[in-house]
Amino acid sequence: MAETHLYRTHTCGALRGDDAGKTVRLSGWVHRKRDHGGLLFIDLRDHYGLTQLVLHPETPGFEAVERLRAESVIRVDGEVVARSAETKNANLPTGEIEIQVKAVEVLSEAAELPLPVFGEPEYPEELRLKHRYLDLRRETLHKNIVLRSKVISSIRRRMVDQGFLEYQTPILTASSPEGARDFLVPSRLHPGKFYALPQAPQQFKQLLMVSGFDRYFQIAPCFRDEDLRADRSLEFYQLDVEMSFVTQEDVFAAIEPVMHGVFEEFADGKPVSPIDQPQTFTNDFGQTLEHKGFERLTYEQSMKWYGTDKPDTRNPIKMQDVSDHFRDGGFGLFNKILGADQKNAVWAIPAPTGGSRAFCDRMNSWAQGEGQPGLGYIFWSDDQQAWGGPIAKNLGQEPTEALMTALGLGKGDAAFFAAGLPATFAKFAGLARTRVASELKLIDEAQFKFCWIVDFPMFEWSEEEKKVDFSHNPFSMPQGGLEALETQDPLTIRAYQYDIVCNGYELCSGAIRNHKAEIMLKAFEIAGYDASVVEDQFGGMLNAFRYGAPPHGGLAPGIDRIVMLLANQTAIREVIAFPLNQQGEDLLMNAPTEAAERQLKDVHIRTALPIKV
Amino acid sequence: MAETHLYRTHTCGALRGDDAGKTVRLSGWVHRKRDHGGLLFIDLRDHYGLTQLVLHPETPGFEAVERLRAESVIRVDGEVVARSAETKNANLPTGEIEIQVKAVEVLSEAAELPLPVFGEPEYPEELRLKHRYLDLRRETLHKNIVLRSKVISSIRRRMVDQGFLEYQTPILTASSPEGARDFLVPSRLHPGKFYALPQAPQQFKQLLMVSGFDRYFQIAPCFRDEDLRADRSLEFYQLDVEMSFVTQEDVFAAIEPVMHGVFEEFADGKPVSPIDQPQTFTNDFGQTLEHKGFERLTYEQSMKWYGTDKPDTRNPIKMQDVSDHFRDGGFGLFNKILGADQKNAVWAIPAPTGGSRAFCDRMNSWAQGEGQPGLGYIFWSDDQQAWGGPIAKNLGQEPTEALMTALGLGKGDAAFFAAGLPATFAKFAGLARTRVASELKLIDEAQFKFCWIVDFPMFEWSEEEKKVDFSHNPFSMPQGGLEALETQDPLTIRAYQYDIVCNGYELCSGAIRNHKAEIMLKAFEIAGYDASVVEDQFGGMLNAFRYGAPPHGGLAPGIDRIVMLLANQTAIREVIAFPLNQQGEDLLMNAPTEAAERQLKDVHIRTALPIKV
Repeated sequence: MAETHLYRTHTCGALRGDDAGKTVRLSGWVHRKRDHGGLLFIDLRDHYGLTQLVLHPETPGFEAVERLRAESVIRVDGEVVARSAETKNANLPTGEIEIQVKAVEVLSEAAELPLPVFGEPEYPEELRLKHRYLDLRRETLHKNIVLRSKVISSIRRRMVDQGFLEYQTPILTASSPEGARDFLVPSRLHPGKFYALPQAPQQFKQLLMVSGFDRYFQIAPCFRDEDLRADRSLEFYQLDVEMSFVTQEDVFAAIEPVMHGVFEEFADGKPVSPIDQPQTFTNDFGQTLEHKGFERLTYEQSMKWYGTDKPDTRNPIKMQDVSDHFRDGGFGLFNKILGADQKNAVWAIPAPTGGSRAFCDRMNSWAQGEGQPGLGYIFWSDDQQAWGGPIAKNLGQEPTEALMTALGLGKGDAAFFAAGLPATFAKFAGLARTRVASELKLIDEAQFKFCWIVDFPMFEWSEEEKKVDFSHNPFSMPQGGLEALETQDPLTIRAYQYDIVCNGYELCSGAIRNHKAEIMLKAFEIAGYDASVVEDQFGGMLNAFRYGAPPHGGLAPGIDRIVMLLANQTAIREVIAFPLNQQGEDLLMNAPTEAAERQLKDVHIRTALPIKV
Repeated sequence: MAETHLYRTHTCGALRGDDAGKTVRLSGWVHRKRDHGGLLFIDLRDHYGLTQLVLHPETPGFEAVERLRAESVIRVDGEVVARSAETKNANLPTGEIEIQVKAVEVLSEAAELPLPVFGEPEYPEELRLKHRYLDLRRETLHKNIVLRSKVISSIRRRMVDQGFLEYQTPILTASSPEGARDFLVPSRLHPGKFYALPQAPQQFKQLLMVSGFDRYFQIAPCFRDEDLRADRSLEFYQLDVEMSFVTQEDVFAAIEPVMHGVFEEFADGKPVSPIDQPQTFTNDFGQTLEHKGFERLTYEQSMKWYGTDKPDTRNPIKMQDVSDHFRDGGFGLFNKILGADQKNAVWAIPAPTGGSRAFCDRMNSWAQGEGQPGLGYIFWSDDQQAWGGPIAKNLGQEPTEALMTALGLGKGDAAFFAAGLPATFAKFAGLARTRVASELKLIDEAQFKFCWIVDFPMFEWSEEEKKVDFSHNPFSMPQGGLEALETQDPLTIRAYQYDIVCNGYELCSGAIRNHKAEIMLKAFEIAGYDASVVEDQFGGMLNAFRYGAPPHGGLAPGIDRIVMLLANQTAIREVIAFPLNQQGEDLLMNAPTEAAERQLKDVHIRTALPIKV
């Protein structure tokens, strides 16, 4: 007979009813321990599952085990026994059997636990992070981390199946003058000089295209020294993608099956936006285009309908510009606002089933809590005969009827109104739309609803700097190319730039890149950057474009956010094995920490502490 | 008819003889351009291959293309035409056809090249790195980087197939007191404190095991601020692996199919050490054990037979201790050395086919060049009747005969001898062994020959510090556990520690870990570290071991080195897309570089430059 393995013949998730009678060896953690009529019942746990052990008082080692604390690690030898019908546990894959233990060995005894594992009672995050090795044994977190691993593995498989190759880009690299704050790494060999950790491999992935690699991806670690939020960490991962000789359509066609496939694989039965249905899309110039794949919206449409470029399209409410219904009408306030500036508008937020004074008042109070003067409304409650509320009174019966009918609303419904400069109130209107839908329970949450936001403006007016600036990525190709830059009002130029939004979260952003040095210089000139500044700060890439650059484009979905959505979590720390806390500290390994004098000297720096007052 | 794609209907590697007659669109780089009787022949290149284009003088765009420099990017429309029998190119997958071009568009015009792509002439490395986007277009480097990607992808697939899951560990982490020099990252939120980049995720992978994850791997970026060599970079990748509830045999059984499989997949037909053959292995205690998989050697055996713990076992020469043949014999020098210290020995380096005075003299000169007094030898050249050379003369005919027969040598062969304290001369003897084999062409280089080095000593005597210290990893489990630490001479204790060596390169190192706090404290005590120091520096892990830790072990093969071997390269920079140069500089992106005053202030540091004298 072969020698028995030192630790186990089976994992704790392996044994089934038809294993009854087998002699087995298991190792694992003491998950739970119960005394029942002199017998000791132990749920033994490992990565794979739980198995119930039974120890009789005469079992060798009984006393030692009886004294053991939960989370101690033991090895047992015993016999698999079928449980009686009434003691079977249908919730457990191993619930048909238990192990009659014959011998026990304690592999590692646990001290008193600072954090219980069994039952996952809520505990302060600081304690959880300090004892992360215990926290990670808890079922939910353990599952999240396994999910993360499987999601990433699935993404990789799907990318490779589509002909992409993964290439690593440097982590010790150059400081990037654009974007967020860099992490610096002092150089030992070059006194006074610093590497930076990449905020994203943006330039490197474009350089890979210029180097002739056709379809690149990388599950890339990225670093931004920004203040932390629940959904933002100092280091995070993105699915970085870039392709050569492609149009926007090619990028969409490459990534949609990956996103759709991954979500469907791990959505646990929730529906995911289909990608095989014919769709139509009308762009900002009124052209109607047919396509398959996720729904598409232009940036302008998204702002107009949802008040945000990250719309939750599970929410059925679409806002509408109803200025024409109010212009020169009976409602003086809106009339006045519309007359004051031709850019001003009135937007309606339809609220189907919201037709009650109580609800409208609640929304109005909420708006005041948000710092607004209030939120105008029209409603038709079930016990009334017509549309009511102050606006309806002023506007008059017929115009109100026309307005509300145009909004598709009737008895039992309501609508809210925001008036003024859309650029100023759009964000608030978007929040009101969300609030209305969640209060009225209009959202079917159990789904993953995707859309593309396309045609972002290339430039925007910076109020702070009183100049035209890039609205997003300076490396995007302007629609219309050099000619557009030379002839159009910059603020009307759109870029081949696009985001994927899912359930109101921006999952990724991407663009067809500018691959021509002269267009790049011109775009930067419009944003107020001298050619010499561009040469100085982006010289590596600019030069590369001078030796034969292919048209290229890509995007970069955020991995942590994808996993957060799939794990149904709202904090990024619940999907990272060893996260920093919200102060950027690793409480387990004790980082950051003081460095030895010798270490600082090696890299030619001194600390310069803020002066305490 | 569907609209033609903006850039291509096919890649440059796609078209075959039976595509003749098709109208196609291709995009790519102008690889090479030739004029032939008024016709313009262009090899158009992309990631996928080369396709020959033919332009007639009347082709629209002919003149523009004629003027274009190599490496410009063009798009062509044309017809696929079968080449005549005599112009077919059997070396090219697309060699049966060419494209009769009807229209050309220049997508990106190349300026004069600082570095040619076609033909890959040798160029200085600095220039190659500065224009890496051109260098990467060259066939060899392009292939190496693609190979790297495929090797890593294959490793991942093989690990997942074996039930491993990939988990990411932090990159912004704590400074590690052991090992090499850390890269420091100053913290903005915590003035005067620093993160460090991980030298390896050693502690995190052990913590993952303590957290209940059973089989971990990661293609992990690692960072060491050490002086650079051809085969060492500041950042590098390892296949980091850890497993719970395992013995050394389990680790071997898990990793051997991965290493064997990957090498066989990419070895281009070269044989790879089999893993399905029964082998025997005799350990240092004389026990003979049977196993399958790669050959095994103990550290002691490896030092004795090969003078190194990284033996190239393609080299058939095995050194032997032949002290007994010389003790009290006729060769005075060796006699005297053997008498001076009972630790002294004489080792023989057999040199089959090396039996000529010229060769032996050449080896002797080489040894003198290496700083040795010389290298004793015995040889039997084809024109002699018996063993010759000064040693043979002194030792006498019969003892020489007995010695050389014991070494399995005869007419036409030679042997070299090293005498003294083996710890002192072993390294040189190992070099001599390598030299003999390469001079005599005894090595069949076209193969990948693996072996395990096992049973490394747990401790060694540090001559510098005059104390016992860890020989390798302080986290390894000593063979014999706590009892061995408490009762044995530390220098005789072996660890469950092992390396994989391939063709003389150490590919990885690993161990069964110490998972018990008390054994860890005892081991550090023997190496002269106080419990408080251990608590201070490894508190996170030590604490973790106190709350139920499973027995665990793992290893970490070096990815860059595996790719180097498979790509038949000797410099790590040839298998990394964007490497730093040997001074740790990124010449393309210009890193490291001075930081802005504001950036330094943000992270509370000042530079402290060395004073120039």
